[in-house]
Amino acid sequence: MNAHVSSTTDPLAGYRKAAVIGGGVIGISWAGLFLAHGLDVVVSDPRPDAEEQVLAGLAEIAPALAELGLLTEDLTSRLRFEPDLARAVADADIVQENGPERLAVKQEIWKAVEQAAPDRALLATSTSGIPATAIAEAMRQPERLVVGHPFNPPHLVPLVEVVPGERTSAQTLRRAHAFYTALGKKPQILRKEIPGFVANRLQSALFRECVHLVAEGVVTEAELDEIVTDSIGLRWAAAGPFRTFHLGGGPGGLPHFLRHLGRAMEEAWPGLGSPAFDAATVARLTEQAEQAFGNAPVGELAARRDRAQIALMRALAKTPDTNARA
Amino acid sequence: MNAHVSSTTDPLAGYRKAAVIGGGVIGISWAGLFLAHGLDVVVSDPRPDAEEQVLAGLAEIAPALAELGLLTEDLTSRLRFEPDLARAVADADIVQENGPERLAVKQEIWKAVEQAAPDRALLATSTSGIPATAIAEAMRQPERLVVGHPFNPPHLVPLVEVVPGERTSAQTLRRAHAFYTALGKKPQILRKEIPGFVANRLQSALFRECVHLVAEGVVTEAELDEIVTDSIGLRWAAAGPFRTFHLGGGPGGLPHFLRHLGRAMEEAWPGLGSPAFDAATVARLTEQAEQAFGNAPVGELAARRDRAQIALMRALAKTPDTNARA
Repeated sequence: MNAHVSSTTDPLAGYRKAAVIGGGVIGISWAGLFLAHGLDVVVSDPRPDAEEQVLAGLAEIAPALAELGLLTEDLTSRLRFEPDLARAVADADIVQENGPERLAVKQEIWKAVEQAAPDRALLATSTSGIPATAIAEAMRQPERLVVGHPFNPPHLVPLVEVVPGERTSAQTLRRAHAFYTALGKKPQILRKEIPGFVANRLQSALFRECVHLVAEGVVTEAELDEIVTDSIGLRWAAAGPFRTFHLGGGPGGLPHFLRHLGRAMEEAWPGLGSPAFDAATVARLTEQAEQAFGNAPVGELAARRDRAQIALMRALAKTPDTNARA
Repeated sequence: MNAHVSSTTDPLAGYRKAAVIGGGVIGISWAGLFLAHGLDVVVSDPRPDAEEQVLAGLAEIAPALAELGLLTEDLTSRLRFEPDLARAVADADIVQENGPERLAVKQEIWKAVEQAAPDRALLATSTSGIPATAIAEAMRQPERLVVGHPFNPPHLVPLVEVVPGERTSAQTLRRAHAFYTALGKKPQILRKEIPGFVANRLQSALFRECVHLVAEGVVTEAELDEIVTDSIGLRWAAAGPFRTFHLGGGPGGLPHFLRHLGRAMEEAWPGLGSPAFDAATVARLTEQAEQAFGNAPVGELAARRDRAQIALMRALAKTPDTNARA
C-alpha cells in the first residue's frame, strides 16, 4: 500500500508506480530511492540475472537509504521484474530509463515506451550525455521526454540535471523538477542542451588538469586527492565556484575579483595542461591507483566515502542559510 | 606565557615567536592561528593603519578560531607591531611572509629578513604563485626559503602547499611540513615547482569551464554554484578526483575506468570552453553576481560559508577512515 495515495497535498501524490528500465548501478539506485519513498517499482532488464543483480544491489544500498532517514523495511515487497518493456511501463506514472549509452538503443527503447506507457506518465532518461533531442527523434510526442541525469549514485548525491530537448515541453520540465524535488533531490533545469551537461563537464575540466599534474610528476594521485579534499573540495561543498570567488573579492565581491585577478587568470589558462591517456600516462595512473587505493575492495572504499558524504549532507542541512539565494 | 615552552615532545616546542610580514587578509589569518596556538606574534607592515586593520581582522576571525577548538582568550596579549622589518624578525623562530605578489618586492623583503633573522628561523613565503627559486635569487642561503602557500583563509582551510625552490633544502621542507602539521594544518609537499602550484591550477581549470557555461547561457552563476555544491563539491569534500573515479570504476577501480571511459573523456576535452573575460562576459558575470549574492554584505556571506565549512570539517573528523591511504 502506497503511503502517498491518500494525501492530495503530497508532491508525490500523482506517482504510485515507477518503471525503471535497466537494472545496472544507476537503475538499482533509482529503484531503491523510489521504493524507499513508497512507490511501487517495476524493473525491466532483459538480462537473465537482472533480478539477482538488482536484489543484491538493493541490499547493498539499503543502509545508506536508512541513513538518509528513508523507510527501508520490506523494501522489495513493492518491487517486481518484467523483462518485457511494454508490459513493464503499461501502468507507470514515471518511467526512468537507464539503458546503455548508445543513441540507437535509447531511440528504440523510447519508441516502444511511448507506445505502451499511459499518457500521464513522466518520461525521463538518465543519459549522462546524449541529448534528449536526439533520443526523441523517433518519438511521436517528443515533448514528453526529458533528461533526468543523476550524479552517481542517484540515491545519495542530491543533484539531478533536468535537461530539455529542443521539443521538450515546459510542462514536462516542471513535472520532472517537481518529481525529483519530492524525492528529496536537488534538480537543476539547464537552459540549453550541451554535450556532457554541466557537472560532468566541470568534473572533466578539473580532471584534465589532475591528469596533467600527475603525469608531470608534480604530485601523486593520493597527494592530489588530499589537496582537493583539504581545500577546494571542502570549499565547494559549502559554496560553489562563483560564490567562492565572490567571497574572495572582499567587500567588492566577484566584480572586484574579476577586475583585479581576471586578467591574470585568463593569461594563465593556456598554461594549463593538455594531457593524453597515452600508454605511459595510463601506466603511471594505474600504478599509483594500486598504491593509493589497493588496500581495500572498491565496494568497501565506496561505503566509507558514502558514510562520509551522508555525514557532510547532515552537517550542511544544519547550516541551511549558507547558500541562500538573493 | 607560551603554553608550549616546557614540553619537549610538543611539535611546536621549537616555535615560540612568529614574525608575520604583511598585515593583510592572509597575514591576519596566519597571525590569528599562531596566536591561538600560543605563539608570540610580531606583525610587520609599513602601512600606518596596519595595527588598526589587524586588530579588527583578528576580532573578526576569533569566533571561527574558537569554533575550531583553539584558545582565543587574550588573543592579542602576545601580539605586537613592528614596522621595521629587521627588528620584527630579529628573534623569530618562524617568519611567514605575506607581502605583495611582486617578485622584486619579495626579493627585497627576503634579502633583509635573511640578514636579520636568527639562523634557527624557519623562513616561509605565502606566495600563491611566485616560485621560491626566483624569490631566493638574492638570498645568500636560498636553501632556507620555502613556499608555505595557504588556501585562503589559512586559519580555516586545512591545506598548505609546501613548495621547494630548486635550492630549498630537504631539512627546510621537513621543518615546514612539521610546523604546519603542528598547527593542525594539512601540508602537502609538492615534488616540483609549477606556476600556480596545484590547488589554484585545479580551481582555475574548473572555473574556466564555469565561465564558459555561464557565458553560453547554459546556466546562471547561482544555478552552477548549486550544481557544484550538490554534486562534485560534496563528492570532492569526501574523496578526491582520482578516488572518485576509482570508486566509479566498479570492482576494477580506476584502471577499469580509464580503459572504458578514458578515451571518451579525452575526446571530449577539446570541446571544453575557452572563454575570455571580454566586456560582454564580465558584464554578464557582474550582473549575475549582483542577482545571486547581492542580498547581503560579503563579510556576512563569508561568515555563513565559514560556519558551514567548520561543520563539514567536524563531520569529516568523525569519519576518519574515509581517505585512509594504503
